Amino acid sequence: MAVYTEVSDVELEAFLADYGLGRLLSYKGIAEGVENSNFLLHVEAGLFILTLYEKRVAASDLPFFLTLMEHLAARGLPCPQPVKTQNGVTLGKLAGRPAAIVTFLEGVSSRRPSPPQCAALGLALGQLHRAGADFDLVRPNALSLESWPSLFGTAKERAREVQAGLASFIADELAFLAIAWPRDLPRGTIHADLFPDNVLFLGDEVSGLIDFYFACTDFLAYDLAVCLNSWCFEPDLSFNVTKGMALIDSYQRMRKLTKAEIEALPVLARGSALRFALTRLVDWLNVPPGALVKPKDPLDYIKRLRFHQRCKSARDLGLRDPGREL
Amino acid sequence: MAVYTEVSDVELEAFLADYGLGRLLSYKGIAEGVENSNFLLHVEAGLFILTLYEKRVAASDLPFFLTLMEHLAARGLPCPQPVKTQNGVTLGKLAGRPAAIVTFLEGVSSRRPSPPQCAALGLALGQLHRAGADFDLVRPNALSLESWPSLFGTAKERAREVQAGLASFIADELAFLAIAWPRDLPRGTIHADLFPDNVLFLGDEVSGLIDFYFACTDFLAYDLAVCLNSWCFEPDLSFNVTKGMALIDSYQRMRKLTKAEIEALPVLARGSALRFALTRLVDWLNVPPGALVKPKDPLDYIKRLRFHQRCKSARDLGLRDPGREL
Repeated sequence: MAVYTEVSDVELEAFLADYGLGRLLSYKGIAEGVENSNFLLHVEAGLFILTLYEKRVAASDLPFFLTLMEHLAARGLPCPQPVKTQNGVTLGKLAGRPAAIVTFLEGVSSRRPSPPQCAALGLALGQLHRAGADFDLVRPNALSLESWPSLFGTAKERAREVQAGLASFIADELAFLAIAWPRDLPRGTIHADLFPDNVLFLGDEVSGLIDFYFACTDFLAYDLAVCLNSWCFEPDLSFNVTKGMALIDSYQRMRKLTKAEIEALPVLARGSALRFALTRLVDWLNVPPGALVKPKDPLDYIKRLRFHQRCKSARDLGLRDPGREL
Repeated sequence: MAVYTEVSDVELEAFLADYGLGRLLSYKGIAEGVENSNFLLHVEAGLFILTLYEKRVAASDLPFFLTLMEHLAARGLPCPQPVKTQNGVTLGKLAGRPAAIVTFLEGVSSRRPSPPQCAALGLALGQLHRAGADFDLVRPNALSLESWPSLFGTAKERAREVQAGLASFIADELAFLAIAWPRDLPRGTIHADLFPDNVLFLGDEVSGLIDFYFACTDFLAYDLAVCLNSWCFEPDLSFNVTKGMALIDSYQRMRKLTKAEIEALPVLARGSALRFALTRLVDWLNVPPGALVKPKDPLDYIKRLRFHQRCKSARDLGLRDPGREL
């Protein structure tokens, strides 16, 4: 659920006066994204998304996100394209919040992605990494290795409320990752949160990649690890290697993984599972009274992590012929 | 906020297969209505609203609401029109809930209605009462005089948490209304909740009347009293008699008030103010943990009630030449 800020008709009409989008026909607050307030706008020019950026998103990061979407859309990626005012500006202010309008993308998120949808995602992810290769802006990944110990620190004392022994399990994993985490893999602009919610399909074709508000500069293969975690586990949290294979194979059709990336993939998958387990754990333990968001179970990602701990190589994740270039 | 039930792409596509609306292009949960889950559907046939009826709406009342919307839409009222499946059915089941699809109406709710908008509302309300005159189904008003004492009973003990002396103030008002409430006024089908949220405008023209889920059979003039309360007070809760005049005058262009209705209007306004104060009070005192809805301040309606207690006649509400037919 995400309408934290209400917008009045009068404020919105004043805001829209700077854009050449015609008359306001309707707007509805929509339950999309968890960090920002989003509205589906219908104006004479068509459908658009209006986003008001709430406190959890740093205002200083907004130019990175908006410029990235422009960059990717210009290279044919099906991602929302920021709309400019008649003065050429993409970031404005509405109801006391930074605000932007982006194009609306048709399509439906898959609640339970099929193998062909995992394959389509792999292609789209590879395209995203290729299209981002000449993107100049840099944003460090605020939710990578360095941040995990302090994130854990805020939840450590109460982790046992979630599961007995959880704190020492996480502490051990942090110690392992501090040593095993790769130092030198191909870097670039990654989405970093490409869950099924953030990918729109028409049939088995990807029609939209959305919600770029965790995008950053990091290992490209880490993005693939995030997708393996969020797309290839079944509801019972067993790993579906057919889906993993579809995802990795298609990704490699757009961008071949290096030998170092293939070797690192199981560790990246562990790190990615821990990253989402940690943020979910913190949210789970800190539900504010009157919260509009139902927190997600951190144990879903702990279970994924336990799977990855047992993996011997990227082959267990669906890579064919690991160690050999395809 | 109102998406209590999540709907998966697969479930929705199966549900839509019974309708002749073409391919599903997108759907977004929207923050509209407080009783039900609502989604804005985009299918090849255009935009529609999908509603899943949650527990607070009695399933046995749904045929009344859906048939009423069909009846009014057929008479030219700009209200949502239930869409039939290919078998001619308007009420189905989705995600374990009764569900229906209705047409989407363009327009924007006015956060602070202007006098011309109050005038347009008056016309629309009069049209609604005329169009409902030959509607055969009957649904008693579950939130009228008879229900108020028991509603108050559930909140009485804790009313002082909201304001000192509130319980005895309400008890006195209930005693007054039990005697003063009219017994015999023109009855018909009323909306009963025609707040600014539920009226869509394009400019100063009414483009939509929505959310018929409190509609019932009651005094027609009570509907006017609900609108006087919800449309004609300023944010500081002073009554704007210009708005009241615009509303009543326009209403009478469609349907003249009888002498008895005019005499009863101040009492109906008191009762309507108390009805919303009571439901808000109950909601205020019973916010469930993790609630998705921020409760509204019951005192806003207590202040309206205090204004009406000081009114001498319908003239104070904007009626011109009270007691004389226009």
